[in-house]
Amino acid sequence: MKIGVLGIGITKFGEIWDRGIRELLLDSQLRALNDAKLTPEQIDSIFTGNMCGDSLSGQLHIGAMASENLNLDKPSIRVEGACASGSIALRQGIAAIESGAANIVMVNGVEKMTDVSTDQVTTALMGAGDEELEGFNGLTFPGLYALLANAYMDKYDLTREVLAEVSVKNHYHGARNTYSQFKNELTIDDVINSTMVADPLTLMDCSPITDGAATIIIANESIAKKMNTEVYITGSALATDTLSLARRKSLLEISAGKMAAQNAYKQAKITPKEINFAEVHDCFSIAEIYAVEALGLAKQGEAGKLYKEKQTYFDAKTPINTSGGLKACGHPVGATGVKQAIEATMQLRGEAKERQVKNATIGVTHNVGGSGATAVIHVFKRMK
Amino acid sequence: MKIGVLGIGITKFGEIWDRGIRELLLDSQLRALNDAKLTPEQIDSIFTGNMCGDSLSGQLHIGAMASENLNLDKPSIRVEGACASGSIALRQGIAAIESGAANIVMVNGVEKMTDVSTDQVTTALMGAGDEELEGFNGLTFPGLYALLANAYMDKYDLTREVLAEVSVKNHYHGARNTYSQFKNELTIDDVINSTMVADPLTLMDCSPITDGAATIIIANESIAKKMNTEVYITGSALATDTLSLARRKSLLEISAGKMAAQNAYKQAKITPKEINFAEVHDCFSIAEIYAVEALGLAKQGEAGKLYKEKQTYFDAKTPINTSGGLKACGHPVGATGVKQAIEATMQLRGEAKERQVKNATIGVTHNVGGSGATAVIHVFKRMK
Repeated sequence: MKIGVLGIGITKFGEIWDRGIRELLLDSQLRALNDAKLTPEQIDSIFTGNMCGDSLSGQLHIGAMASENLNLDKPSIRVEGACASGSIALRQGIAAIESGAANIVMVNGVEKMTDVSTDQVTTALMGAGDEELEGFNGLTFPGLYALLANAYMDKYDLTREVLAEVSVKNHYHGARNTYSQFKNELTIDDVINSTMVADPLTLMDCSPITDGAATIIIANESIAKKMNTEVYITGSALATDTLSLARRKSLLEISAGKMAAQNAYKQAKITPKEINFAEVHDCFSIAEIYAVEALGLAKQGEAGKLYKEKQTYFDAKTPINTSGGLKACGHPVGATGVKQAIEATMQLRGEAKERQVKNATIGVTHNVGGSGATAVIHVFKRMK
Repeated sequence: MKIGVLGIGITKFGEIWDRGIRELLLDSQLRALNDAKLTPEQIDSIFTGNMCGDSLSGQLHIGAMASENLNLDKPSIRVEGACASGSIALRQGIAAIESGAANIVMVNGVEKMTDVSTDQVTTALMGAGDEELEGFNGLTFPGLYALLANAYMDKYDLTREVLAEVSVKNHYHGARNTYSQFKNELTIDDVINSTMVADPLTLMDCSPITDGAATIIIANESIAKKMNTEVYITGSALATDTLSLARRKSLLEISAGKMAAQNAYKQAKITPKEINFAEVHDCFSIAEIYAVEALGLAKQGEAGKLYKEKQTYFDAKTPINTSGGLKACGHPVGATGVKQAIEATMQLRGEAKERQVKNATIGVTHNVGGSGATAVIHVFKRMK
C-alpha cells in the first residue's frame, strides 16, 4: 500500500462556541485544500467521520453536508465507529482509491460537543459501549476505563504516580502545539489531586469535551509522486472486539488494537522497532498504557517503565502523542483519528516545530472506538 | 463491475416489539449466511447501514456489534447517509472487494424505530435534512415532501388521484410479500380520505415507522462463479446534493438520483429501456414519481402517465416496487437500501412468487437520503 498525503487542515481544538458543525467542517476542508494546492473540483470522493452529530446537534447526513460545503455533487458519506470514526473515514478513503473508484479523496473528521450539557455528552458517548449491558445499567466511559485501570494495576506493577505521568507528558506536548485545547503544563500532584471521576481516574486522567474538525487529502501513488508528496500511508488495518467489557477474553489488553497493529505492520513491512513515534488513543491515561503495549512498543504489563523513565517525550526514545494526545490536544471524537494522521504528517514533514521528533521516518496512529470494540492502525512513512 | 450476490436474509418488517436492534440484526445475518451456505469465518469484512441507533436506541458503534454477533473480530463498520444508509453499506462492501481488501463481504441494514414515541422518530428523521435551515425552523419530512409535491403538481399534469395510485399499487404488491409490514390493499379513495399529514400528502401517502433488518452477502467474481451465483451487481453509484431544499437548483427533480443513475448505467453498460423492474425510494408517494423520472423510466413531468395507465404493477410494463416499496413493505430506514437489493435478487432468482416479474434480467435499486441530498443506484443482472 502506498497512498500519498497531499494536504492537511485542522481547526483549533477547544470550546468553539461561535461555530456549528458545518462551519467547523468547512474550516478544516478549506485549510486542507489550501495546503494541498487543490480546488474542490479535483476531489473525487469524500469520507467524513462523525460520532454524535445525531444526538448532540440533531444533524445526521454529514456526508452530504461535506460535499455541499464545497459546492460539489460527488460521492460523500459519513462513517461511524464511535471514537474511531475519523480513522475509519481515512481507511474508507484509502479503499476508494485502491478500488479504482477515486484518485483523490478528502477525509474529514468533525465533532461539535459543547452546545449541550456534559450529562448529554456523557450519555451520547455511552452509545459507543453496549447500551443494553452497560449503558442501561449506569456505566459511563470513565467507569469502563476505571475498571480496566483497576484490573491492570492489580496485576502489573503500575503505580498511581506513573499512570499520572501519561497526562503530565501529554500536557507538556499540548503546551507546544498551536491547535491544542490545553496549553497548561501539569505536575504529577496536579493529576492525582484533581477531582475524582471514577477511582483511580481523576479529572486529569480524562480527555476533555471538545469541538473541532480535521481534514486530510490523500491520493494514489502516481498523482502523489507528480505532486512531490513526502508522506505516504503504507498500512491500514481495522479489527473489532465485543462492545461490552463483560464479554472480553481479557481486561488486561485491548486485543483489537494488537490485531490491527499486526495487520498494519505486515502491510507496511515494518516491525515495532522501526517506529519513530506514535499518536495513540489516550481517552483516559490508562488507555495510553494499553495502546503502547498494543503497538508492541512495550511488552505486556511493562509500558509503565517507559513513563517512569520519561521515554515518551518528543525528544526521548519513544515519543508518544506529540500532539498532546486526546488529553491535552482535545478529543472532538469523530475528528480525533484524522488529527492523529495530521500530527503524523506534520512530524514526517518536519513541521512540528517546538515538539518536532528528530529524524522521524515512520510514525503510527492508533485510534480506538468505545472501550476497545474497534481499533484502527495506520502506518505513515516519509519517502524523501 | 461484476460482484456476485451469494446470499440474502431479511426479517419480517413491522412493529417488532419483542426484539432490539441487536436481535434484529443477528436474525438477518444468520438468514443470509444460511442462504449463502457460508460460515461466519468465511466473511472477510462487514458493513452495516443504520441511521438512528444513536437517538432512538442509545446505541452507536453498530459495526462492532455486527462483528460481535457472529463471534468475529473482522473489520466491521457502520455507515450513514440518512435513509440511503443501507445502499451506502452495499456500495462500501463493493469497494472493499474491488480494492482487494476483502473477497466475501456481509452488508447489513438495520433500524429499530418503534421503542420510542412518534414525535421522537419524526425529530430523529429530521436529522437527514438541514438542521439549522430546516429542522430548527419546524420543518418535518412530510412537510419537505409536501413542498416538492406542490411544486411538481403546480407545474406538471399530476392529479391527486394519480398520485394516490402510487400507494394503491404499493399496497397491492405488499399484500403479496411475506415480509412486508402491511398486507391490506387500498383504493384511491382510501388514500385521499386518510388523515391529512402535510397538504397534499395524507397518511396513506407516507411510509410508516418500521423495525427491521436485512443482510446481503457479496463476493468477487471468481468466488461467485465457483458458487454458481446467478445474480450480479454490475453498477454502483452515489451522488450528492444540498441538504436543504432551499439551496436546490430545482424542486422539480431529485438531481442526485439522475446523476447516480447515469453513472451506474454507464458502469453496467445499460440504458433505461433494458430495465425490467425497479425498487425505488417511495418514502412519500411523490418521491416515487421523482424516482421513476430520475431513473429515466419516464420523461420529466410524465411519470404520472405510467400510474394512470397502471403500468407499474409487477405484471405490467414497468414494474416498480414489487416488494411493496417503503409504503407497504415498511421503511426501517437504515435497512431499506439492503431490502431493495434483496427484492432485486429475489426477482432475478425467480423467487418472488405471487409478485414475480416474468423473464426479468435487469433490475435497478434507487435509494435516497433526506429530501435528495444523497442518492444511491445499483444495477442487478441475472447472468444465467
